[in-house]
Amino acid sequence: MNTFSIKAFGSQAPDAELKQMDIHRREVTSKDVEIDILYCGVCHSDLHTARNEWNNTVYPNVPGHEIVGRITKVGEEVTKFKLGDLVAVGCMVDSCRECESCQDGLEQYCEAGNTGTYNSPDKHLGLQTFGGYSERVVVDENYVLRVPENLDPAATAPLLCAGITTYSPLKHWNVKAGIKVGIVGIGGLGHMGVKLAKAMGAYVVVITTSIEKVEDAQRLGADKVILSTDKEQMKANAHSLNFILDCVSAQHDINAYLNLLKRDGQLTLVGAPENPLPVAPFSLIPSRKSFSGSMIGGIRETQEMLDFCGEHNITSDIEIIRIQDINQAYERLLKGDVKYRFVIDMDSLKN
Amino acid sequence: MNTFSIKAFGSQAPDAELKQMDIHRREVTSKDVEIDILYCGVCHSDLHTARNEWNNTVYPNVPGHEIVGRITKVGEEVTKFKLGDLVAVGCMVDSCRECESCQDGLEQYCEAGNTGTYNSPDKHLGLQTFGGYSERVVVDENYVLRVPENLDPAATAPLLCAGITTYSPLKHWNVKAGIKVGIVGIGGLGHMGVKLAKAMGAYVVVITTSIEKVEDAQRLGADKVILSTDKEQMKANAHSLNFILDCVSAQHDINAYLNLLKRDGQLTLVGAPENPLPVAPFSLIPSRKSFSGSMIGGIRETQEMLDFCGEHNITSDIEIIRIQDINQAYERLLKGDVKYRFVIDMDSLKN
Repeated sequence: MNTFSIKAFGSQAPDAELKQMDIHRREVTSKDVEIDILYCGVCHSDLHTARNEWNNTVYPNVPGHEIVGRITKVGEEVTKFKLGDLVAVGCMVDSCRECESCQDGLEQYCEAGNTGTYNSPDKHLGLQTFGGYSERVVVDENYVLRVPENLDPAATAPLLCAGITTYSPLKHWNVKAGIKVGIVGIGGLGHMGVKLAKAMGAYVVVITTSIEKVEDAQRLGADKVILSTDKEQMKANAHSLNFILDCVSAQHDINAYLNLLKRDGQLTLVGAPENPLPVAPFSLIPSRKSFSGSMIGGIRETQEMLDFCGEHNITSDIEIIRIQDINQAYERLLKGDVKYRFVIDMDSLKN
Repeated sequence: MNTFSIKAFGSQAPDAELKQMDIHRREVTSKDVEIDILYCGVCHSDLHTARNEWNNTVYPNVPGHEIVGRITKVGEEVTKFKLGDLVAVGCMVDSCRECESCQDGLEQYCEAGNTGTYNSPDKHLGLQTFGGYSERVVVDENYVLRVPENLDPAATAPLLCAGITTYSPLKHWNVKAGIKVGIVGIGGLGHMGVKLAKAMGAYVVVITTSIEKVEDAQRLGADKVILSTDKEQMKANAHSLNFILDCVSAQHDINAYLNLLKRDGQLTLVGAPENPLPVAPFSLIPSRKSFSGSMIGGIRETQEMLDFCGEHNITSDIEIIRIQDINQAYERLLKGDVKYRFVIDMDSLKN
């Protein structure tokens, strides 16, 4: 298989800093498109993987799965895209296409395991997949999304992970006008959850541990803010919400949040705390509540989300960085010091 | 308010044995019926309450909320029942009737708290309510159920708690033909779950820790039995079920059972372990699974369940005891030594 060499940024070991390296991409095959990467968002998963915190990283590792760019080459059988199209790639670049989940358009739950944009076995080149911290990427057109031209491409990049991760459960559990939605945790995911739930017509309640975030939550569109460290506020708002989107990755007391739900309420986890969360049976049984999880979204739904964002003019709040500053950005990410997503301007790698 | 005295069986303190006592019932008011109790099932909640294991028991306590009897008196405005009708009373004898849950026919989730058949504040007499371990009971007709005459009344009694507790979640989560249902734990609840899920047309898989229960599970109607202590069996059946009804009240590893669910699967707890159950985020997120709870059922749904049981000729497997043997029965209950429900023949109290 023909390949070409490009510049990328990645790491060689768990404790190594990310630095510039060369990687190979395949030349487009019949169904592939080649994308010149303009922007790539920085997701906490990038950091987890770069540092092997999930114990599954294959080195060298090139992170990045919030990719926006323009098509520079198309395979001969490509029908969906043409040269110059503004497109995006999210967390997946392939899946088995045959299992029930793939057939249902829920490739993220592919029973054979989807092919992650980075750190997954690369079916074409035999190595691991390399992500968006790079000049270009070659992807099967079926796993490429179209970006509405009215959106700022840099601020669109985080929609490909933070956006779809929050959009998918909000849609799946029927958030709409008349529904009271709680968003726990205002970070990369949570701030998108607020904007999306609001655009869906819901009454949006932000639940935060941080008094500094109250004003910002209101700016993002929250109708109400509950300070979760204030027991009186938590008590006063018991049994008030229909749905809670829990965007917190740190350990936290799920039972306190379940108590905010009305009968038949659902709390869905999209952040992924490392350790099991103790759930009291009496947090669920007396009002038929559910505690669930959700993971990104399928390709069809990701396109739907991008179109929805185009229509409602929704993008992420971002801070643009140079690729050379990625290691410092990771340190700031660990401190929660970003509002609310770093996005790499890939020009910094190319020039 | 006029009252009359009847014989009952109950306890005066957490460590006291149950013994015979006299209690008062109100004379029927306009919407009440008086029921001569024929049979009363023995639920594990009776034991928890008699011994104050939930720290909320008001003494004297008379347990019993699986009541079958015949109507001996009706209030002047009663329209649903007449003298001699075979009827039943379950876990509730009243609720606020005004909140959203009551309006929805889900009185078990009454926002003001439903009035339990025992150990709840008695709106009429000012004391606590007294349950079915007694000669007669007086109940508002709206909280009384009709028993299909083709069912054995003794074996029908457990349907009022064990039956509806399993029927309600099976219906709520759409169990029917084409659905693969797991039932965890074969006891008073679980054995009803198997019978009901089977009658609903589902493919029923029993999951048990006990090799002695395999044959019995098959007799009850299970299509398949998984021995949960056998890691190979658990692994071979991963991702195979749509719904799991978890009837276990002891502490157990929820994650092992969640792993048996397919994408979008739901595990619903109806047993109530005392301590929180640790749930790993990665047991839920990667296949959008839910962990939920459910509590008994509403009055309308309880009637629906009884009619369903009449139609499918379903009752509980029971062992009939005399009320004088209730303390020994509790000891056997603690050892799981009953197939699958004790039912008290109330003649033993009357004569």
